[in-house]
Amino acid sequence: MKGIELINIGDEILRGEVEDENSRFISRTLLRWGLSLQRISFLPDDEEKIVDEIREATERSRVIIVCGGLGPTPDDHTRRAISKALNIPLEISVEAGEEIKRRMLRFNASPEIVEEQCKLPVGARAIFSKRGSAPGFLLQKEESLIFALPGVPSEMREILLKSRPQLLKHIKPSQQTFLLETHVCGLCEAEIIKKLQPEVDLNKLAFYPRAEEVRVVIKGKNEREVKEISEKIKEILGSSVYEKSLSEEVGKLLVEKNLTLSVAESCTGGWVEEAITQVPGSSRYFLGGVVAYSNKAKVDLLKVPKEVIEAYGAVSAECAVQMAQRVRELFGSSLSLSVTGIAGPTGGTREKPVGLTFICVSSSKKTMVKRYIFPGERSEVRKRAVRRGLNLLRLFLLEENF
Amino acid sequence: MKGIELINIGDEILRGEVEDENSRFISRTLLRWGLSLQRISFLPDDEEKIVDEIREATERSRVIIVCGGLGPTPDDHTRRAISKALNIPLEISVEAGEEIKRRMLRFNASPEIVEEQCKLPVGARAIFSKRGSAPGFLLQKEESLIFALPGVPSEMREILLKSRPQLLKHIKPSQQTFLLETHVCGLCEAEIIKKLQPEVDLNKLAFYPRAEEVRVVIKGKNEREVKEISEKIKEILGSSVYEKSLSEEVGKLLVEKNLTLSVAESCTGGWVEEAITQVPGSSRYFLGGVVAYSNKAKVDLLKVPKEVIEAYGAVSAECAVQMAQRVRELFGSSLSLSVTGIAGPTGGTREKPVGLTFICVSSSKKTMVKRYIFPGERSEVRKRAVRRGLNLLRLFLLEENF
Repeated sequence: MKGIELINIGDEILRGEVEDENSRFISRTLLRWGLSLQRISFLPDDEEKIVDEIREATERSRVIIVCGGLGPTPDDHTRRAISKALNIPLEISVEAGEEIKRRMLRFNASPEIVEEQCKLPVGARAIFSKRGSAPGFLLQKEESLIFALPGVPSEMREILLKSRPQLLKHIKPSQQTFLLETHVCGLCEAEIIKKLQPEVDLNKLAFYPRAEEVRVVIKGKNEREVKEISEKIKEILGSSVYEKSLSEEVGKLLVEKNLTLSVAESCTGGWVEEAITQVPGSSRYFLGGVVAYSNKAKVDLLKVPKEVIEAYGAVSAECAVQMAQRVRELFGSSLSLSVTGIAGPTGGTREKPVGLTFICVSSSKKTMVKRYIFPGERSEVRKRAVRRGLNLLRLFLLEENF
Repeated sequence: MKGIELINIGDEILRGEVEDENSRFISRTLLRWGLSLQRISFLPDDEEKIVDEIREATERSRVIIVCGGLGPTPDDHTRRAISKALNIPLEISVEAGEEIKRRMLRFNASPEIVEEQCKLPVGARAIFSKRGSAPGFLLQKEESLIFALPGVPSEMREILLKSRPQLLKHIKPSQQTFLLETHVCGLCEAEIIKKLQPEVDLNKLAFYPRAEEVRVVIKGKNEREVKEISEKIKEILGSSVYEKSLSEEVGKLLVEKNLTLSVAESCTGGWVEEAITQVPGSSRYFLGGVVAYSNKAKVDLLKVPKEVIEAYGAVSAECAVQMAQRVRELFGSSLSLSVTGIAGPTGGTREKPVGLTFICVSSSKKTMVKRYIFPGERSEVRKRAVRRGLNLLRLFLLEENF
């Protein structure tokens, strides 16, 4: 049962200087094609070690993806290492050479670089990227297929996607796995599991909790299966579950109902509005908002009555309600959302600890305010407030008639 | 020359379901201690494969860190695999058992889980975390030291940091590498290299370009060396270079000069303000701002003259200047920043393409406006605008007298 392995080349990841962006893309892409990785490794820019690893890999794997080290500098060892490990000499492939020369002219590089990047193991099949100069290549040696990919993420992605037919010719998809992502806000992982357990096969699900939201990955044999499971989850969890990001869900509902939105934020400092405007076309429903960070701004600009802040404080249900109602009037929007809280690390008291947050959604017909105490550090509290705020708005849009 | 390797256990990373958060923390921590990783691998939850890998690892490495698979469920194989690979039986360690029982009472877990997690290879030294139930452990077998860590990032980090003395007893720091990060905005990688090359050893530097900012990592033998290089870089690149994040740099300067700030944003939708308020204590200088996403909001709320928008458009130097000046008046701040642009994907024209952005900084004495065309997709354009906006503000604060 020989499978696929991925060998990444480069000191920078072993030293923690950069994050590995490639492995996740490669593993998810293969999974969609019905292929799964059996191991991933990271090796330094050390030719001998790469040679040894490739030799061992040909013993244990049918397909060996080698990612990185295809550049033209002396510390790029992958071409030479593959050549040594498989005992196949490097040559300037005519086909690749012509193509690379054309590209080099375009990228304005020197002839030595062209020369170096043209040298592929004899019999290798080059795959070019529109974005960069180093081609990837496929090379068969006995049972094994070696697949070299450049380490630059955008080039790697393009070449990997192009290689699909060749890869699937060499290794049979064991079982194609379809993935479908869905999200839950307002229930923790344990609660979700408890509710789903009697009716859904938990082996088909993976749960990834993050601040105030659980990402649920559904795995199935085909599209129908994952969709059926997804429907079942929706049936059981109801409005807690949604498909896309909270901002997209909110945007979709606002467009459907032909409504506009404004926002007043304090502790989240603009993050709610940033999240809403991540969605292309959000100008159709989002008019704008006020980041009323200081109390003076809450009073002068948002027109929150001074007496409300004096009597209840800026972090209070009363202030949140005022912020939402006033911002809605200021912008003339159909709906508004407000957030006020204590993000920390300082500013907490016994009665009003760090994490205390009030979130309010308001329309001309109804105003709803909720109180939360979010755990975690400053950025965590803020992120939780953003998610909960958007979710409250989503639920308001689902439940109310406009 | 046997070194250190890291073996990560778990299907979820091989399937691309979660991002690997642990390897980068481990590699950077070791580097700070003068230790460097020679390889990293990821294996599935497959006992036989883990056993084989640990056996091979003891041949090639002096320290083998095994991360993950310490939980109490049947698909957690690490304890058994280490026991088999090294031929050392598992036993319920009295010392660990007592400690785990205490913890289990606290975490409210069942006795079977306690039992299972108490079983460590004979002679192993348990290291506990305050956060979770599974202890890590250190185990010496002949030349090799096996170090098992839980996969939960917060627990892993705590246990790794605690293990420093034991690790350094077993393996000598070859050469402690000190890392210092610094940042450059306004110059691309090639320009930076060209300027630094004559005077700085480029082997001591690593460059990581991201949107409108290059992260420069300085590597040296000791703190003095990296500081010297950092000073040299500052000397050559001048005000393009800064140490911390742009928000922190801006915050530091505003506090030093005792100034306050307000912001008016359009295309960045709140992101500039979100970035500014990431910094704890930003309420000392940040009063607030307006996200004037619609033109109506620019006119009604920000008081940008309607005629300006009609004559020049909302994405224009004239509008940016009005936005900055008006928001400064509205909030009564010493300084203000405004951003207006076309983030895309739609909304671009031939004269005003997607990416066109105007950024303005204004004080009572001076108003400065700049025009950019940022490449990339919506989120890229927005991120570039945020960074450039903050950098313009930073330079304004550095250069002007208040």
